[in-house]
Amino acid sequence: MAANASSSASPLTAGAGQLSLENVRAVLFDQFGTLTDWQGSISRLLAEEARKTDESSGAGSKGLQSIDWLLFTQVWRDGYMRRTREIASGGSGPGNIDELHFEILNDLLEKPEYAVIKESWTAEKRRELCWLWHKLDGESTWPDSKPGLEALRKLDPPVLLATLSNGTLRLLVDVTRHNSLPLDAHFSGDLLSSYKPNPKMYCGASSLLGFDEDARKRGEVAMFASHIDDLRAASQHGLRTIYIRRSTEDVGVPHGGAAVKLKSEGGEVDLVVDEVGELAKYLR
Amino acid sequence: MAANASSSASPLTAGAGQLSLENVRAVLFDQFGTLTDWQGSISRLLAEEARKTDESSGAGSKGLQSIDWLLFTQVWRDGYMRRTREIASGGSGPGNIDELHFEILNDLLEKPEYAVIKESWTAEKRRELCWLWHKLDGESTWPDSKPGLEALRKLDPPVLLATLSNGTLRLLVDVTRHNSLPLDAHFSGDLLSSYKPNPKMYCGASSLLGFDEDARKRGEVAMFASHIDDLRAASQHGLRTIYIRRSTEDVGVPHGGAAVKLKSEGGEVDLVVDEVGELAKYLR
Repeated sequence: MAANASSSASPLTAGAGQLSLENVRAVLFDQFGTLTDWQGSISRLLAEEARKTDESSGAGSKGLQSIDWLLFTQVWRDGYMRRTREIASGGSGPGNIDELHFEILNDLLEKPEYAVIKESWTAEKRRELCWLWHKLDGESTWPDSKPGLEALRKLDPPVLLATLSNGTLRLLVDVTRHNSLPLDAHFSGDLLSSYKPNPKMYCGASSLLGFDEDARKRGEVAMFASHIDDLRAASQHGLRTIYIRRSTEDVGVPHGGAAVKLKSEGGEVDLVVDEVGELAKYLR
Repeated sequence: MAANASSSASPLTAGAGQLSLENVRAVLFDQFGTLTDWQGSISRLLAEEARKTDESSGAGSKGLQSIDWLLFTQVWRDGYMRRTREIASGGSGPGNIDELHFEILNDLLEKPEYAVIKESWTAEKRRELCWLWHKLDGESTWPDSKPGLEALRKLDPPVLLATLSNGTLRLLVDVTRHNSLPLDAHFSGDLLSSYKPNPKMYCGASSLLGFDEDARKRGEVAMFASHIDDLRAASQHGLRTIYIRRSTEDVGVPHGGAAVKLKSEGGEVDLVVDEVGELAKYLR
């Protein structure tokens, strides 16, 4: 259900002079959290690895299995969000997300509660675990992502569908292929030499798809994400903004989640949806 | 039929120490000419435009329809090949293929035999004609391209399939989508800031897919093209090379077309095929 369904004014016509979503010819999708349930998938894969390691080190040992892997996945991801934002605003750090995941993982293992991980998994094994982010499988996308993208692909005139993510291009390709998501192109941190919310990401992706600043002003490009910060930055560069509420995302983020409001309600975004496919009816 | 089928030695085992194609984990495909029959498609679309213009300017006029559009398409393409090579080796010129097509088209119209085109089509109309390269439709891919790529996608472990072309990213996306080609990623001139045969193209695309110099040395990346020059450059940077014979390509090019030979026969390439799908049996 669209968040605006109970609103008296349509978000597409409300607000004098406000651009509608009917001009949109390309949608840039955030990947992790927005199309993909990284939390469920990574925590499950880590728990499987923990079980295998415990079993191979003795039937009675349950060291790694005592870890709360859902929480661990969350703090790993938190570290990634924090670091990419630091780097996006000019800080130093690896431009490759696999390296960044490795750096953050190693930092986490310095905490006393995770000493058992450091003891059990070698640096080589930990590098392999960073590759789990590439192995998000069929269980890892939110169930509405694939059918939703398929619905959007049927629009005529066509709307280009691309990812815009801080992941590496390889990461985006792997996840997209594993999940058979019908996407036209991928824009990644390593491809555009930055991380969101740096302007290079939004402007570079739009430009490579053939939409210059004037086209953005005409409302031809939209950003689709489950993170209000991402949309706020996209909006600054002329992109239309579509927020999707995801249970794992923007938890505790001010003005995020349930607090996200439409521009027509004095808020920040052009549209709020609960499923990817909902967008189709607003684009034509 | 593979060109090596009549050879006594398999190209994959011939040549002491020669890397086989079994290590290949990613194939980079040239797009125009290799997956796509640009000649048939563009000449047909131009002839349609010519007919429409002639009809709208009076029933008796046949000015534009007197042009040999197949030949015109060929010289337009020749100009593009010449200019991208100049720019790839350090010359100046537009990095955007639409701009380049426009520049070459305008140059062509200075020839006396094409004066009728210059008189009939305004600059605005000519810009629109450059966009025809994006509109290559279902009739524009060689018939083996789509089923061949689909066969390659079924390989396990998976092989990544990407385009590597001098086109713009938007051009590659449009053609891929119009023809429903199952490709994982696109690498274009504007994305990598150069044109083939500049090394930035081969090394940049490989690197973004996660294959560094060592991986290339292990034979994990292959270039697939109907142009011997393209493969010669790819080979210099460690890529395996697969040549496909296409009737419109390498016409009159020394050592191209029927003259292309396998390394095992003293030639330059690792494999020669006549259809995209043939490659599948050499990769596993």
